[in-house]
Amino acid sequence: MRAWSIEKPGGREVLKQIEVEKPVPKQGELLIEVKAAGVNRTDTLTRQNTGLSRPYPILGIEVSGVVAENQSTDPDLNAGTRVCGLVNHGGYGEYVIMPADRAMILPDELTFEEGAAIPEVFLTAYQTLYWLGELEEKEKILIHAAGSGVGTAAIQLASQLSQATIFATAGHPEKLEKAKELGAHVLVNYKEESFDERVNEVTEGAGVDVILDFIGASYWEMNLESCAVDARWVLIGTLGGSEVAEVSLGDLMKKRIALKGTLLTPRSDAYKAQLSKEFAEIAMPLFKEKQLKPVVHTVIPFKELPEAHRIMEDNENTGKIILKVSD
Amino acid sequence: MRAWSIEKPGGREVLKQIEVEKPVPKQGELLIEVKAAGVNRTDTLTRQNTGLSRPYPILGIEVSGVVAENQSTDPDLNAGTRVCGLVNHGGYGEYVIMPADRAMILPDELTFEEGAAIPEVFLTAYQTLYWLGELEEKEKILIHAAGSGVGTAAIQLASQLSQATIFATAGHPEKLEKAKELGAHVLVNYKEESFDERVNEVTEGAGVDVILDFIGASYWEMNLESCAVDARWVLIGTLGGSEVAEVSLGDLMKKRIALKGTLLTPRSDAYKAQLSKEFAEIAMPLFKEKQLKPVVHTVIPFKELPEAHRIMEDNENTGKIILKVSD
Repeated sequence: MRAWSIEKPGGREVLKQIEVEKPVPKQGELLIEVKAAGVNRTDTLTRQNTGLSRPYPILGIEVSGVVAENQSTDPDLNAGTRVCGLVNHGGYGEYVIMPADRAMILPDELTFEEGAAIPEVFLTAYQTLYWLGELEEKEKILIHAAGSGVGTAAIQLASQLSQATIFATAGHPEKLEKAKELGAHVLVNYKEESFDERVNEVTEGAGVDVILDFIGASYWEMNLESCAVDARWVLIGTLGGSEVAEVSLGDLMKKRIALKGTLLTPRSDAYKAQLSKEFAEIAMPLFKEKQLKPVVHTVIPFKELPEAHRIMEDNENTGKIILKVSD
Repeated sequence: MRAWSIEKPGGREVLKQIEVEKPVPKQGELLIEVKAAGVNRTDTLTRQNTGLSRPYPILGIEVSGVVAENQSTDPDLNAGTRVCGLVNHGGYGEYVIMPADRAMILPDELTFEEGAAIPEVFLTAYQTLYWLGELEEKEKILIHAAGSGVGTAAIQLASQLSQATIFATAGHPEKLEKAKELGAHVLVNYKEESFDERVNEVTEGAGVDVILDFIGASYWEMNLESCAVDARWVLIGTLGGSEVAEVSLGDLMKKRIALKGTLLTPRSDAYKAQLSKEFAEIAMPLFKEKQLKPVVHTVIPFKELPEAHRIMEDNENTGKIILKVSD
């Protein structure tokens, strides 16, 4: 089968198409014939990871496709079933192994390209909003990087599941337009104004209950200013740097802020299984009814993977970049 | 009635005994004849608070005593009942108002001096360990300032309620000896060794699940090193400074740390009531059976309050400083 790996850790030029044997599923696993794969920032980081050694992995951590072989005891996942879900690696290949307990059945209403746009960003958004952010009905939430995959998913979930008041930040008008369409209420172009001032103004000084922070260091002070008392501030990325020059713990204490760092990819199999199960029950039906929509920025043909990484690394996308693996 | 207030914000010399009218309880409140009051760091901070204006309050936020008047509908709290609990202010006076829903009935086995040593430190420790730290059975916990009031309470609760493995730090051998007696397993004199190295050694690199941090800035790096993956790091004091230079958010994310700032005193009445109720149900019976013990460092006569503040400010105490208000 065809797959994408790397020649050695490095830039986009190291991406390498290879020919390998189909993987063989063990007890509890599915073999999936991959139709589409999501392209994620973690893939570009893996590509550059000098800690890796040979044999280098097949990249890709989420797919949609059709079950080719079911080695689990779940009869709902027999061969021919359309599914999507997280894989530990190997998503950029014609076949991949997926632990059966994290496969989510793909409603017929969704294409495979849409299905591949769901797992990573919606599960991350769900985990961040609910398991860590403890977002409650009608609370106020600040979502940065509103045009990103996780941002567009989080806006929809916060809107549809919690009727939250949503503050969204991005640097391009079209990303903010999309955020509005998906359910955001207050739009802030960070190139033109300070979001903490808008939060302060709109909430009359009360602040927001939850922050989804992909930015980190460069927004530290403004995020702190935006927090309400008892705010949950979930840190899921450091696009704006990782080192904060000065942190005042007194402010964290006075506002009783819970600052929670998280990453989905390195979590345990059991965690991913439980998250997938809860999400499939609560949110998958809403995709059927079009209340939730996978946001696909572009679909890239299999042989043009380096271009998909370029779009990701240049932050050009609003929503997901999808690699079309087979028809 | 006699009470202690301040002449103006400042050092111990501003503490001033005054003569005032007995307070009058409203619906839902108790009038308590105060027998003993706990002396807390928050009292010394209130004493110095230049944000206060006249009339200055009567200091003190926890007492034990006897119900003098019951304006609630709870028949268990009728006049004559021995109680202890948090008050919003006024603890250093012969009578004080306490919302009835946070009064905890004092078992006959405990003296009033012991009763006044329970609310603030045990409720803070309980809130920190369980509501914020989410300490689970047999987890590993690092407790700083092990000789402090909250430290001695937290060691007992973590030991008796959760069979936790307890790492305790302090700067004096006698405080560590006390910590051991109360249930701590690994004792670290911070003047002689680095606690993160001991944690690393004893846990074989795994780290601790929960940190109770009263220290803040000066321990930042070592606390971060001590955290296990998915650790809960609860910040309840900044004795070692509040400003941390160069914080790495990447480390917080990689270890998926939840850093939670908290303070008990400014919490809402409803929060204090719920915390008192849960604590009274779960932990008060253990005081009766001597599995939990109030740790009283010294009992100071009413007229000698400034000496009580001196002991607190010089960090001389292992456990609580109690003001004896009346016989």
